Amino acid sequence: MTHRPRPTIDLRSDTLTRPTPAMRTAMAEAEVGDDVYAEDPTINALEERLAEMFGHEAGLFCASGSLTNMLGVAVSVGRGQELLAESRAHVLRSEVGGHGAIAGVTSRTWISPDGTLSADDAIALAADARGYNQVGTALIAVENTHNFSGGRIADIDELRRLRGLTDARGIRMHMDGARVANAIVASGTSFADQGAVVDTMSVCLSKGLGAPVGSVLTGSVALIDEARYLRKRYGGGMRQAGILAAAGMYALDHHLDRLADDHAHAALIAQEVAAAVPAFVDPSTVETNIVLLRTGGAGVSADDFARAAADRGVRLIAMNADECRLVTHLDVSEQDARDTARILAELAEESANAA
Amino acid sequence: MTHRPRPTIDLRSDTLTRPTPAMRTAMAEAEVGDDVYAEDPTINALEERLAEMFGHEAGLFCASGSLTNMLGVAVSVGRGQELLAESRAHVLRSEVGGHGAIAGVTSRTWISPDGTLSADDAIALAADARGYNQVGTALIAVENTHNFSGGRIADIDELRRLRGLTDARGIRMHMDGARVANAIVASGTSFADQGAVVDTMSVCLSKGLGAPVGSVLTGSVALIDEARYLRKRYGGGMRQAGILAAAGMYALDHHLDRLADDHAHAALIAQEVAAAVPAFVDPSTVETNIVLLRTGGAGVSADDFARAAADRGVRLIAMNADECRLVTHLDVSEQDARDTARILAELAEESANAA
Amino acid sequence: MTHRPRPTIDLRSDTLTRPTPAMRTAMAEAEVGDDVYAEDPTINALEERLAEMFGHEAGLFCASGSLTNMLGVAVSVGRGQELLAESRAHVLRSEVGGHGAIAGVTSRTWISPDGTLSADDAIALAADARGYNQVGTALIAVENTHNFSGGRIADIDELRRLRGLTDARGIRMHMDGARVANAIVASGTSFADQGAVVDTMSVCLSKGLGAPVGSVLTGSVALIDEARYLRKRYGGGMRQAGILAAAGMYALDHHLDRLADDHAHAALIAQEVAAAVPAFVDPSTVETNIVLLRTGGAGVSADDFARAAADRGVRLIAMNADECRLVTHLDVSEQDARDTARILAELAEESANAA
Amino acid sequence: MTHRPRPTIDLRSDTLTRPTPAMRTAMAEAEVGDDVYAEDPTINALEERLAEMFGHEAGLFCASGSLTNMLGVAVSVGRGQELLAESRAHVLRSEVGGHGAIAGVTSRTWISPDGTLSADDAIALAADARGYNQVGTALIAVENTHNFSGGRIADIDELRRLRGLTDARGIRMHMDGARVANAIVASGTSFADQGAVVDTMSVCLSKGLGAPVGSVLTGSVALIDEARYLRKRYGGGMRQAGILAAAGMYALDHHLDRLADDHAHAALIAQEVAAAVPAFVDPSTVETNIVLLRTGGAGVSADDFARAAADRGVRLIAMNADECRLVTHLDVSEQDARDTARILAELAEESANAA
Repeated sequence: MTHRPRPTIDLRSDTLTRPTPAMRTAMAEAEVGDDVYAEDPTINALEERLAEMFGHEAGLFCASGSLTNMLGVAVSVGRGQELLAESRAHVLRSEVGGHGAIAGVTSRTWISPDGTLSADDAIALAADARGYNQVGTALIAVENTHNFSGGRIADIDELRRLRGLTDARGIRMHMDGARVANAIVASGTSFADQGAVVDTMSVCLSKGLGAPVGSVLTGSVALIDEARYLRKRYGGGMRQAGILAAAGMYALDHHLDRLADDHAHAALIAQEVAAAVPAFVDPSTVETNIVLLRTGGAGVSADDFARAAADRGVRLIAMNADECRLVTHLDVSEQDARDTARILAELAEESANAA
Repeated sequence: MTHRPRPTIDLRSDTLTRPTPAMRTAMAEAEVGDDVYAEDPTINALEERLAEMFGHEAGLFCASGSLTNMLGVAVSVGRGQELLAESRAHVLRSEVGGHGAIAGVTSRTWISPDGTLSADDAIALAADARGYNQVGTALIAVENTHNFSGGRIADIDELRRLRGLTDARGIRMHMDGARVANAIVASGTSFADQGAVVDTMSVCLSKGLGAPVGSVLTGSVALIDEARYLRKRYGGGMRQAGILAAAGMYALDHHLDRLADDHAHAALIAQEVAAAVPAFVDPSTVETNIVLLRTGGAGVSADDFARAAADRGVRLIAMNADECRLVTHLDVSEQDARDTARILAELAEESANAA
Repeated sequence: MTHRPRPTIDLRSDTLTRPTPAMRTAMAEAEVGDDVYAEDPTINALEERLAEMFGHEAGLFCASGSLTNMLGVAVSVGRGQELLAESRAHVLRSEVGGHGAIAGVTSRTWISPDGTLSADDAIALAADARGYNQVGTALIAVENTHNFSGGRIADIDELRRLRGLTDARGIRMHMDGARVANAIVASGTSFADQGAVVDTMSVCLSKGLGAPVGSVLTGSVALIDEARYLRKRYGGGMRQAGILAAAGMYALDHHLDRLADDHAHAALIAQEVAAAVPAFVDPSTVETNIVLLRTGGAGVSADDFARAAADRGVRLIAMNADECRLVTHLDVSEQDARDTARILAELAEESANAA
Repeated sequence: MTHRPRPTIDLRSDTLTRPTPAMRTAMAEAEVGDDVYAEDPTINALEERLAEMFGHEAGLFCASGSLTNMLGVAVSVGRGQELLAESRAHVLRSEVGGHGAIAGVTSRTWISPDGTLSADDAIALAADARGYNQVGTALIAVENTHNFSGGRIADIDELRRLRGLTDARGIRMHMDGARVANAIVASGTSFADQGAVVDTMSVCLSKGLGAPVGSVLTGSVALIDEARYLRKRYGGGMRQAGILAAAGMYALDHHLDRLADDHAHAALIAQEVAAAVPAFVDPSTVETNIVLLRTGGAGVSADDFARAAADRGVRLIAMNADECRLVTHLDVSEQDARDTARILAELAEESANAA
């Protein structure tokens, strides 16, 4: 097996990481069985391990984070009932509309301009179903870290306060924890801390943790059983997927603490770009492994900036007309981060001057 | 035919109106045919009449406003695409979640605390679909008047500005005009003014206008043809429904201008209650035929207040823990309004004192 | 009110009937209320009356038979569960696919070439859900009379036998009784006989019974409550629809026994056409008010035959390439039937000779 | 890595196979990328390879055969349109109702008692949509081999004849080719022969071919693009899944021809059981790797028989009250087959005598 030479530093997403040689060995040696019959020992072990880490009863291995989110929402929100989330939540913005299109969920949103969590804003939107025509709120979904606001961490105290408020109203909570490991490492909280505030947790193994494929949904036995049934209906049942789960096990053993490096790299890039063009990014908002460059604030088109960065060997994503996103990860070395910081700072300055 | 004595003044909704003797005569004499074959002349005439009033090409008669709203949304928003609306919009709060559960629509909401329309707040939420996982905004739905904020009118200039912004983005607009006739009469705008700002209009004949059953969706021939197909799938095709359409024709002829009386009655009630307990209602926000009593502001439970009012002969609805809603309509005389104002003012004062 | 002169004998469907003067009077005098609040006394009376006739606990008035069928199926068949029906059942062939598209029902079909009911064929298809990937049969729907096979009656003994078999398997039964009144009158069974073999009954008032709009679903209180909730979601809630229900009450009082006339008229037409061209129709299969002309059997295109009949003043429907359907009803007099028989017999002969 | 000792011969399904050491090596050395960005070279290579084998333009790798079937059906059948299949087709019986519940597809079935394909029976059910309430047939799905009838092969001449009939009607065809490789090997046809008769082909790599996870859908570029979009919505997008695709590549290289061994093993078992109890199985119907034991024909309960077989070290599945299924596969040696034949023949005899 040979890695092709990579011509650029690819910061489009932390999903791009490729398994390391050691992870590949772990996969090759995985004990497997037919998971549709719940007989794959490695999957069973991974599901149990993550459930235990979050303080939940059971887990379910899935092919994608979109699927764990869809199942997590669907088991708590009946058709025509309501999901509340922040206005730029991944579940509503970036999952191809599956919650409405497949699960028949209806949704309303609170608005957090900077992506931080306000328990009051979230609960203010909650509604009871009075009369049989009204829609009742069944679930509040929080996203930690919050992707589209640049990897902001949901404050654990606000999470706990929101959990108290939802408990009092009989409303369930789900966490889109695609990058909850980043939040945990950066905030000094524990998996148990995060698990304690929600009924269902979706955690991704193929982002910062570096596994090739897989997310796990955790929750109570009853909810996970229902999710297992729906996973089959959605076409998400796999057979000897222990091969993939072995990579997840390896990632939990070896790739957790090193997320701090990704965070340091993101901070380094943000600081250097901010030094060049302060309007592009406020480094104090860069809490984990995502940097959002508000190119529009300096009159620069996000598409133009992304193209120019690619020409200089750094790949980003234009999230919309005014913002580019870059994500640090396992395959980005400290030298890559330093190179990126220098290249983007120069480009930011040139672009802003030209604007 | 005899009307039973009505023991109370029933202000729960303007849907409660019963057809007048003259309207009944119009219905009894209606020319009819099989509307599933599009052969009912009275329905055809009503559809054409309302389409022309709004400056649209075609119309579709439906059994309910929930259906015209669902069809209006569904013809513009594909499954998994996005509808934007205000956070307390009827389409999201009070239509049994049908947009998600049946049409597979996903939704996000902007927040207007007082129910007035801000074009900037609405358009700020709109999103393009970048990448094939993202959800794009297909439709913005406005509600005029805005039920859950107490019948507030959407300012015509803001509507026009929003239409300009949505046109520039390729986003369609739908109006939940359940009470657009009230907005027209109260604001001095025309049906054509309201129709000009949207692609589809849902107008209700069985609220303030006093017909027993029916709403009409208007829009382009292409959209209405698609809605006609979906109406059949939703089980909403009717046969000789010209009987009902005849009531709608009569209502447009005779019940439009008199909506001003309903508005005067609502204002009268609001003023008298505010004089007694200012925290209950700000009369300047009562623009049409709905009065929202914020009983919670004076420490009074909405359920308790509604029960006490019923005991004194006035029926209201507790919308949530803190607010009661009353609606004036065709079957509420000036004397009824005066009686209501007196009874509720007294009750408000007693309740607030006891709280 | 004036009836326009009708240039043709219109036998496309028994849905085409227009309310008689006496029925119009009953409608004009109907006592009404807001049915969304369950306060319309005429609707309540009609629902109770039909429920009682069928020996069921409760009823629900709907705008269409497609809606009563959709609700009847949806309350018994969960999403992804299974409905069994005959291969040409109206629920699967002619309701715009709503059962799958809206209610998420999956379906399989047994095949009855002549539309008569075989309990063995129906039950043979039923399946239990073994393993969590398999689909279980939740409901068998029978159609009485069976529209697409020419109004065939489901034999009451077969119905009873099927009910026994489904009871033993825990499978519910629904009857699409759009024309169950025709079956009852023609077979000498009672409403109670038909109601006793099913959990839910959909009966139509606007076909042979001659009301302008409306079908009623009957069943247990639990099932009808669920149907009432779904009716609202589907946009089928109406307000003062007692106007329509009054026509249904009138129809039950005055139009039931006269269905025998429609049956006699259909038989007369079938016999005369068969005398002219035996391949067109076997009169022994014409049991109620529908005649299926198998024009293809004589080498005649159904579309051509329908067009030629229309030219001579008789309107039929070409059901497919080889069959035309005609339906006798309240607005077809004995003279109309005689004229139709003569015209179609002549045309059949000419067509068959030319073929 | 160690395989645990397997106490029994496990014939519940050919999905149970575990990757061989050589296959594991191929997986460990796979070149990978992010497939959500279509940048995984091994997945791209597998998709292209299978598309080319079937004579189609493009392919799509999915986590399960249920997903490739759901996508294959969904891209050809709009919501509320119709899928036709045989009455015991896997798509309708064993995919958790996803076609109806998720894709909104409605379905009718023809009936083949022995699972062989009759083009006439299939096309006889097809219907055009006359009038806008009728449902039109969009797709016929065939299953090759036919699982629930014991792995019967669809005759290639009937397939070609059906393709001609569907082409003439504008109806698409999909093949559930979960075991099409078995059909190809057993019937001496080619992948191209099978691909030529359908618009979309679903082929499974994790059944007889022995890969741990994965199915591929092939078809035109337009259909596969649409399927790729829906795959993401269904939560089926994976990242560095080239690890799994590498196993599929290996399987195509090394496990195709050996399917003949599985077929020989199944035949051997069937013959020996039939020799003991002829009512249990007709060996002439055992064409591939599945044996259906009709225990009910000898008065033996399928559940009892499966339990008794397990006690003697052979695991089967009771498909329903009267039939057990066994499937031979890569992990079943000739000796295993001989042992199975002996054990089951003895048990069949004892059971039948006791019945």
